[in-house]
Amino acid sequence: MDFNISEKGQDYLKRVKAFMRDEIYPIEEQYHKDLAAQENRWVVLPIIRELKEKAKAQGLWNMFFPDEKHGCGLLNSDYAVIAEETGRSFIAPEIFNCNAPDTGNMEVLIHYGSDEQKAEWLPQLMSGEARSAFFMTEPAVASSDATNMEASAVVDGDEVVLNGRKWWSTGVGHPDCKVGIFMGVTDPDAQKHRRHSMVLVPMDTPGITIERMLPVFGAYDEPYGHGQVLFENVRLPKSAIIAGPGRGFEIAQGRLGPGRVHHCMRAIGAAERTLELMVKRSMSREAFGRPLAKLGANPDVIANARMNIEQARLLTLKCAWALDTKGIMGALQEVSMIKAVVPAMLQQIVDDAIQMHGGGGVSDDDFPLTALFAYARVLRLADGPDEVHRAMVARLELRKYKS
Amino acid sequence: MDFNISEKGQDYLKRVKAFMRDEIYPIEEQYHKDLAAQENRWVVLPIIRELKEKAKAQGLWNMFFPDEKHGCGLLNSDYAVIAEETGRSFIAPEIFNCNAPDTGNMEVLIHYGSDEQKAEWLPQLMSGEARSAFFMTEPAVASSDATNMEASAVVDGDEVVLNGRKWWSTGVGHPDCKVGIFMGVTDPDAQKHRRHSMVLVPMDTPGITIERMLPVFGAYDEPYGHGQVLFENVRLPKSAIIAGPGRGFEIAQGRLGPGRVHHCMRAIGAAERTLELMVKRSMSREAFGRPLAKLGANPDVIANARMNIEQARLLTLKCAWALDTKGIMGALQEVSMIKAVVPAMLQQIVDDAIQMHGGGGVSDDDFPLTALFAYARVLRLADGPDEVHRAMVARLELRKYKS
Amino acid sequence: MDFNISEKGQDYLKRVKAFMRDEIYPIEEQYHKDLAAQENRWVVLPIIRELKEKAKAQGLWNMFFPDEKHGCGLLNSDYAVIAEETGRSFIAPEIFNCNAPDTGNMEVLIHYGSDEQKAEWLPQLMSGEARSAFFMTEPAVASSDATNMEASAVVDGDEVVLNGRKWWSTGVGHPDCKVGIFMGVTDPDAQKHRRHSMVLVPMDTPGITIERMLPVFGAYDEPYGHGQVLFENVRLPKSAIIAGPGRGFEIAQGRLGPGRVHHCMRAIGAAERTLELMVKRSMSREAFGRPLAKLGANPDVIANARMNIEQARLLTLKCAWALDTKGIMGALQEVSMIKAVVPAMLQQIVDDAIQMHGGGGVSDDDFPLTALFAYARVLRLADGPDEVHRAMVARLELRKYKS
Amino acid sequence: MDFNISEKGQDYLKRVKAFMRDEIYPIEEQYHKDLAAQENRWVVLPIIRELKEKAKAQGLWNMFFPDEKHGCGLLNSDYAVIAEETGRSFIAPEIFNCNAPDTGNMEVLIHYGSDEQKAEWLPQLMSGEARSAFFMTEPAVASSDATNMEASAVVDGDEVVLNGRKWWSTGVGHPDCKVGIFMGVTDPDAQKHRRHSMVLVPMDTPGITIERMLPVFGAYDEPYGHGQVLFENVRLPKSAIIAGPGRGFEIAQGRLGPGRVHHCMRAIGAAERTLELMVKRSMSREAFGRPLAKLGANPDVIANARMNIEQARLLTLKCAWALDTKGIMGALQEVSMIKAVVPAMLQQIVDDAIQMHGGGGVSDDDFPLTALFAYARVLRLADGPDEVHRAMVARLELRKYKS
Repeated sequence: MDFNISEKGQDYLKRVKAFMRDEIYPIEEQYHKDLAAQENRWVVLPIIRELKEKAKAQGLWNMFFPDEKHGCGLLNSDYAVIAEETGRSFIAPEIFNCNAPDTGNMEVLIHYGSDEQKAEWLPQLMSGEARSAFFMTEPAVASSDATNMEASAVVDGDEVVLNGRKWWSTGVGHPDCKVGIFMGVTDPDAQKHRRHSMVLVPMDTPGITIERMLPVFGAYDEPYGHGQVLFENVRLPKSAIIAGPGRGFEIAQGRLGPGRVHHCMRAIGAAERTLELMVKRSMSREAFGRPLAKLGANPDVIANARMNIEQARLLTLKCAWALDTKGIMGALQEVSMIKAVVPAMLQQIVDDAIQMHGGGGVSDDDFPLTALFAYARVLRLADGPDEVHRAMVARLELRKYKS
Repeated sequence: MDFNISEKGQDYLKRVKAFMRDEIYPIEEQYHKDLAAQENRWVVLPIIRELKEKAKAQGLWNMFFPDEKHGCGLLNSDYAVIAEETGRSFIAPEIFNCNAPDTGNMEVLIHYGSDEQKAEWLPQLMSGEARSAFFMTEPAVASSDATNMEASAVVDGDEVVLNGRKWWSTGVGHPDCKVGIFMGVTDPDAQKHRRHSMVLVPMDTPGITIERMLPVFGAYDEPYGHGQVLFENVRLPKSAIIAGPGRGFEIAQGRLGPGRVHHCMRAIGAAERTLELMVKRSMSREAFGRPLAKLGANPDVIANARMNIEQARLLTLKCAWALDTKGIMGALQEVSMIKAVVPAMLQQIVDDAIQMHGGGGVSDDDFPLTALFAYARVLRLADGPDEVHRAMVARLELRKYKS
Repeated sequence: MDFNISEKGQDYLKRVKAFMRDEIYPIEEQYHKDLAAQENRWVVLPIIRELKEKAKAQGLWNMFFPDEKHGCGLLNSDYAVIAEETGRSFIAPEIFNCNAPDTGNMEVLIHYGSDEQKAEWLPQLMSGEARSAFFMTEPAVASSDATNMEASAVVDGDEVVLNGRKWWSTGVGHPDCKVGIFMGVTDPDAQKHRRHSMVLVPMDTPGITIERMLPVFGAYDEPYGHGQVLFENVRLPKSAIIAGPGRGFEIAQGRLGPGRVHHCMRAIGAAERTLELMVKRSMSREAFGRPLAKLGANPDVIANARMNIEQARLLTLKCAWALDTKGIMGALQEVSMIKAVVPAMLQQIVDDAIQMHGGGGVSDDDFPLTALFAYARVLRLADGPDEVHRAMVARLELRKYKS
Repeated sequence: MDFNISEKGQDYLKRVKAFMRDEIYPIEEQYHKDLAAQENRWVVLPIIRELKEKAKAQGLWNMFFPDEKHGCGLLNSDYAVIAEETGRSFIAPEIFNCNAPDTGNMEVLIHYGSDEQKAEWLPQLMSGEARSAFFMTEPAVASSDATNMEASAVVDGDEVVLNGRKWWSTGVGHPDCKVGIFMGVTDPDAQKHRRHSMVLVPMDTPGITIERMLPVFGAYDEPYGHGQVLFENVRLPKSAIIAGPGRGFEIAQGRLGPGRVHHCMRAIGAAERTLELMVKRSMSREAFGRPLAKLGANPDVIANARMNIEQARLLTLKCAWALDTKGIMGALQEVSMIKAVVPAMLQQIVDDAIQMHGGGGVSDDDFPLTALFAYARVLRLADGPDEVHRAMVARLELRKYKS
C-alpha cells in the first residue's frame, strides 16, 4: 500500500505548487478586481494569456491527459493531486489548459473523433487558442434522466440538422469559445441507449443563438459563463456526428467519467482553501474571551471539516487509481460515489466557513466564500444531481448480491 | 388550548391575504424586472408608493404594534400569522409599513424615546414617509459578542460624539432613509452592560459616510441594501441619546426581542412559499417514469419540509403568545429558540427546493430560490448568529436546575 | 390563541404530577430491583396493584377516554399533557390504566364493538382487572405494507377461523392478559381495503400458542413483553368479528390514530426526563477544568434537545387539538407527522444523553438510558415505521395541490 | 499510489478469509446458542479452544504484531485489512489471538516491560493460554479527561500499593484472565503528565474484587465482559511498575494508538457485515409492490452506507500506512480522526439496518443488529469519547497555522 503519488507526479506537483504560489495567488485578487472593472467582462485579460504562456513554457499544460502524446503521461492518481492544487483558485484551471468542459471535450475527440475532426479542432484546443462548450442539459425537461432529452440531431441526406434549446452550457460566453459538442435524438425508435448522437458544432454555424447567460447566486462567472442556447435548424455535414449516429450515450458515459473525477479533484482543493480561510478567521477573532477557534462547538466544526475532506480526498484518489488500473468500467461505483460525496462535502464546509466569518462571510466583496458556495451548489447538480449518483451507487451495490 | 388566532386577528389575516393575492403577487414579477431595468435601483418605484397608500387606506398598516394607539391592537400571536403572510413576498413588508429595521426602531422610540424624539421622528416613520437604519454590527470585531464593540458615543459637554465603522446596516441605501439608531461605547469603565448608549442620528448629520453597499450572494437587495457606514466625529446634541447614556444594552435587549420574532414569522412564510415552489416543481416534472414528487427520497424531502415548517411555526407562535402573556423577560428562551431554529430550517428547505428544481434552481432569473437562500443565510447571522442563540437556550436550561 | 390546557385539564395534571412525585418516583427504582430479583418476572408486584387502587380511588383512571361516561371527560389536548407526565416513568401508564395497547383496544370496543362484546370485556378492561393484546404485525412479511398480511380470519358457517403467526404483540406476557384483537384476511378477492377483519379473541381459546417472547436490546420488558403468537385453527363464533367481516382496515385507521398520539405524548415525557438526566449529569461532572455542561459543543447538545422537544411537543399538542376539533379524519397529516418526528427526536436525545454520561450511559444498571433507547428505537418501528408516516405526510401534502 | 496491500498481506488475507468461511461462520450461530444455554456463560466453549489451535497451526496467530519475532511481520496496512475480516464476527478476534485488550497489553509489555515481566507474561499471552485486562476508566470521574483519575499507585518502600475503583475493564470476566495493567496516580505533585504509573497486576493478588459485571444494552458480552473492579491496598513489588514510576501517560499514548486503530479496523468489518445484512433483507422483502431495496429513500440509505464505509476504510488504511511509515507520533491526527469517524459511522449504519429489518431488527434473537448496535455505541465512548478525538483533530489542525 502506498499513498504517495509517483515520482513523476511529485515533480509536477511541486512545480504546479510553485507556479500557484509565485504566479497565480499573488495576482488573483487584482485580477478579479480588474475584471469586475471592465465594461465587458466577457474578455480574457492579458495577465491570463501571459500566465498561460508561462505555464505552457514550463510544461505545466494539458496535464489531465494520461498519455504522453497529448499530455504529460501522468497517472490519474498523480493528476488528482495536481488538479486539487488548481482547484484552490478559480482561474488556475484555464491557465494550465485543464479546465472543464475543454478537458472532457478533448478526450471525446481523441477517443471518438474522426481524423478530420481531430485535425480541425484538437490543435487549437490543446494549444489553448480555442475553447469549447458542451450542450446536453435542457430547460424544458428533468435532465437528470437523460432519456428525457428533447433536442434533435436528425440525419437529412448528407447533413445532420440540430434543433432544440440547451442550457447550463458552461464556457459558452468565453470569447475564444469556437466549437461545441451537441447531444440530441437521432432515432427516437431505436433502443433507449442508441437513440442519441453527439455532434461537433462550430459556434459560428447559422442557427445558433445564445439566448441569455445564466446568473448563479448573482454571478455570471465571466468570462466563461453558463449559457442558454437555441439551436434552430442548424445544418452540418453528416461527418460532424462523432463516431456515427446513435452513439451519444456511449460517448457520454466515457466522457463524463473522467470529467466528474476532475470536478471532484478540484473541489477537494476548494475545500482545503475554504478550511484554511475558516481556520485563519477563527484564530484571528475573539468572542467571550476566547479565539473563535476555541469557542463552543467551533473545534468540532474544524475537526469535521478536516475529517470530511480527508475522507473525500481518499475516495477520490482511490477512484483515480481505479481508473488507472481498471479503466472507467471498473470504476463506475467509485465515480458515482465521489460525485455524490465531494460537492456536498464542499458545500457543508463552505457553509460552516461562512458562519465562522460572521457578516463578512456573506459579503461577496470581503471573502470568496459566497463564490465558493455557488460553485459547490452548482456542482451538486452539474453532471448529474446527487440523487442520480446515489441511485447508481445503490444499484451497483445490489448487483453484487445477484448471482 | 386553542391554536386559532383571535377573531380580530382572523379578520386582519383574511384582509392581508386578499391584499397579497389581489395586489402584490400579481405585480411582483414585473416589479422585480422593472427595478432590475433601472439604471439606479436605489429608488422606490411608483407601484410601491401606490400599494402603500392602498394598504394604509385599508388599515393594513403598522400592524406590528400591539397597541391600538400606534397600530391595530393585534396580539403578537395574531401578528405572527399575518407577518408570515407578508414574509411570502420580498416586497410585502414595506407595503404594510411592517419591515425591518423600521418596526424595531419605532418600538424603541415609543418605549424609550423622549417626547421630543417621538415628535420629530415617529410621525414620519409611522406614515411611511421616512425610513430608518440600525447601526450595531462592526467589521473589525466579532460582533456576536456585543462587548467587543469598538464604536464610541462619547459625551462631550452638551454634545455626544459618534465615531466608528458599522456594517450590515440594513435599509441604509433606501432613498427615504432619514434617521438611524447608533450604538456605541460611552463609558468603557462602567459595568459591562452599562457602557453603551443608543443615539438617534439623522442621516444628513455631517461626518457620516456610506462607504459601500455590501453584495450578498450577488444581490444588493435594492432599494434597501446593507451598508458599511463610517462615523467620523459625528456631533449631536446630548439629547440625541435615547433614554440617557449607558442604557444601550438594556434597549438592545428590548428591541431585539420582538425584532427577532418578526424576522422568524416572515421566515416561516418564506419557507411556506419555498415548499409550495418545491411541490409544484416536483409534480410538474418527470424522470425515470415518475413525477419527481414520487421519485426516490423526494417524498421524504417534502415530508421533512412540512414537518419542520410546522414545528418551527408552532414554536414561533408559542413565542409570540409568551410575549403576549408574559412579556419579553418571560419569553427569553423562546426568542432564542426560534432565532436558532427558524432561519436554519428555512435554509435547509430552500436548499432542498433548489435541488428539486435542478439547474433552474440555481439560476437567479428563473426562480426566486437563490434570493431566498441568501435571505435565509444572512438571517442565520443577523441579530446574533445561531451559535449565540443556542448558547442562550442552553444557559437558560441550566438555570432551571439551579437553586 | 392559548397554549394553556383547560382548567379541568390543569386540575388533573396537577393531581397526576403530585401522584407521580409522591407515589411513583419514590418506588420506581426499588420496583425495578424487586422485579429483577423475581425468578418469574411475568408477574404483577403488589406495589403495582396497590398504586392502581390508589390512582383509581383518586379518579386518576382511564383518563385517555375523551368522554365522561368512560373516562374523565378530558380533551385530547388535556390528556396530551397528562400522558406526557406518565411517559416519564415506565410503570406509570399501567398504574393509571392508560397504557398501550389497552387504551386503543378499549376504544375499538366502544366505537365498533357489539353490545355483547362490550358487556363481556369492557368492564374488566376499564377496571384494570384484565389486560389485552393486539395481533397485527407478522414475522414473515414486511408489515409496513398492511396489504402484505398473511394471517387469515375465514368465515366458516357460524364460525370464524383464525390462522397465522403474529409477533410484536405487546402485553401478551402479562398475567392479566385475557383477550386480544386479531387482524386477518377474510376475503382475499375483495377490494384492497375491505379484505380484512378484526376479531376479538379470548387468550384461552384453543389453538393459540405464545411461541416466544422477543428480547429487545436485552430486555423482555416484563411483565408486558412482546410476543410471537401462533394461531392454528382458532375457532370462534362469528359474532367475535368486530363490526362484521371486511372492516379491519377501517377499524385499524380509527384505532391507530389516537394510539399513535398517546405513544407520542408519552415519548415527549420520556424525552423530558432524558434531558433532565443529561443536564444533571453535565452539571455534576468536570473535565478539562469545566463542568461538562459548559464544555465544547455540549451546550449545543443541550440547546438542541430543548428546541427539538419543544417543537415536537407543540406538534403533538396541535395534533391532539386537531383531534378534539376536527376528529381523526381532520388530523391525518398531524398524526403521521408526530409519529415520524417524536420517536426519532427521542432517540437522538437519548443517544446524546448516553454520550454525556460516558461509560455509565451504556450500563443498564447505572442509568435508565439504555432502556429509554430501546423504547425509542422500537417506537420508530411500532405502529408503522418512520418511512410509512413520512410517505403519508408527503402524500397529503401533494393532495393540497390537486384540484 | 497503490491501494493494494503487500503480497504477504494478500496471502494472509486470503487464508484468514478462508478460515472465516470454513471454520468460523458455519459455527457462529450454534456457538452463540450453546453459550446462551450454559448456566454459567463465563466459560470458553471447547469449539473456541479447538479453533484457536487450528488458527495457531495455520500461522494465523498474533498477526497484529508488526515484527516477525512476535508476529507474522505484517505491515499495519496489511493487518488493517485482515482485522477488518475478523471484525465481521464477534468471536473471530480471540480465535486468532488478536483481540482487545490483549493486543494492546502485549505491545506494552514488549515496548515497555522489563525482562522479568516479559518472561513471566508474554509467553502465556502470546500462546493464548492467558488473557488480560486494562484498568483505566473510573466510575467516579469524567475519565475523558485522564487527569481526573483518582486511583493511586503509591510507592511504599519496595512495594507499590494500588487503591481505587475502575470500571469498563473489558475481558475481566474471562476464565483465562490472569493479569491486568492498572493505571494510577503515583505522584500528585509531579508535572501533569508525569504523575501516573502503569502497574502489572496478577488478578489473584489479594485486595482485588470484581464488584460486578456491567450489562450493556442487556448483554454481558460473556465470556469477556466489562467489569467494575475494586482495588483495596493491593500490594505488589515495586518491580511491577511498568518502565518505572511516572511513565503512565507516555505508555498510554503509545498503547492506545495502535489499539484504537485495531478497534477501527474491526469496526469497518462489522459495518460491512451490517451492510450485507441490510442489502439482503432489502432484497428479500416487498412492500407497496417493490422490494424494499428499491422503495423510497432506501437506495439512498444503502448508497450512503457504502459511501461512508468506503471513506472510513480508506481513512483507516491511510492511518495504518502512516503508522507504518511515520510511527505513532506521525499519525496522531489520523488516529484521532478514525476514532471519531468509524464508530459513529458504524452506529449509523446499524441503526439504518435495524430500520430496514423492521421489527426483526430490534429483536436480539432474530438478527445480530442489536448486538452490533451495542458494540458501536460502546466504541463511541471506549478509548476516549468522540468529543475528545474531535478536539484533538482540531487542536492539531490549528497547530499547522502556528509559526
